[in-house]
Amino acid sequence: MNRQLNFIGHISTPYNTLEACPNNITPEGPACKLTLKPEYRHELSGLNEGQEILILYWLQNPDEPANQPYRFPGTGDCNNSNLTRAGTFALRTPHRPNPIGAAVLPIETIIAGEITVHGLDCLNNTRLLDIKPAIFLETHR
Amino acid sequence: MNRQLNFIGHISTPYNTLEACPNNITPEGPACKLTLKPEYRHELSGLNEGQEILILYWLQNPDEPANQPYRFPGTGDCNNSNLTRAGTFALRTPHRPNPIGAAVLPIETIIAGEITVHGLDCLNNTRLLDIKPAIFLETHR
Repeated sequence: MNRQLNFIGHISTPYNTLEACPNNITPEGPACKLTLKPEYRHELSGLNEGQEILILYWLQNPDEPANQPYRFPGTGDCNNSNLTRAGTFALRTPHRPNPIGAAVLPIETIIAGEITVHGLDCLNNTRLLDIKPAIFLETHR
Repeated sequence: MNRQLNFIGHISTPYNTLEACPNNITPEGPACKLTLKPEYRHELSGLNEGQEILILYWLQNPDEPANQPYRFPGTGDCNNSNLTRAGTFALRTPHRPNPIGAAVLPIETIIAGEITVHGLDCLNNTRLLDIKPAIFLETHR
């Protein structure tokens, strides 16, 4: 079975080091660009400015070595199952079994395969995995 | 770089064929269980009943052949860039460059590494990728 990811583009943010990244997504934050690869650009048709989208991205830093084991946050320990801290799945930590980041933000503009949003908290050049309309939120608002 | 996914568990739903799956997530729908692998169960600590979570899952059917190309929805065509329909990223179609499904639902119960939610629309035994607190929604409500 194919579990391989296909990056559809990249995200430009003002943050070039992990230390510079804010801890949270803030819709009032600086402009960030989602740039799609040419072969995926026409797949943005139907999205509109002002519409909320779910953005999924791959949090692993391209400079990290391949195949490094998943480490439980705050411990550096790969096999410690006796912790009292909050678990990974109760946190937004990037140290996850699958380092997928998620944000829901409104589209400011869509121009030539580039979407502008505001306030993402990830590194510049983070790889983009998916964009979906955030309609799944409407059902229980 | 490691782009390999690690399935953290599976989702049990009442739907054993794609035809049986509903088209949308409905919080009033039937109970569905998220069962974590034993090594990830303690990572649920800190999540609470009633809390909304973002659930990410891998939409590719285990019976599909590996490495099949991405097909644009509704066309079966892998290279058609001249379509007038809504694009993939404006849809929740499972036919995506990365077949990752997403749902935001409240936790009904957490018991022994199993979370119960209601109304997922995916196949029984869908593989689970991640669970996150849905705090990213709070910023712009």
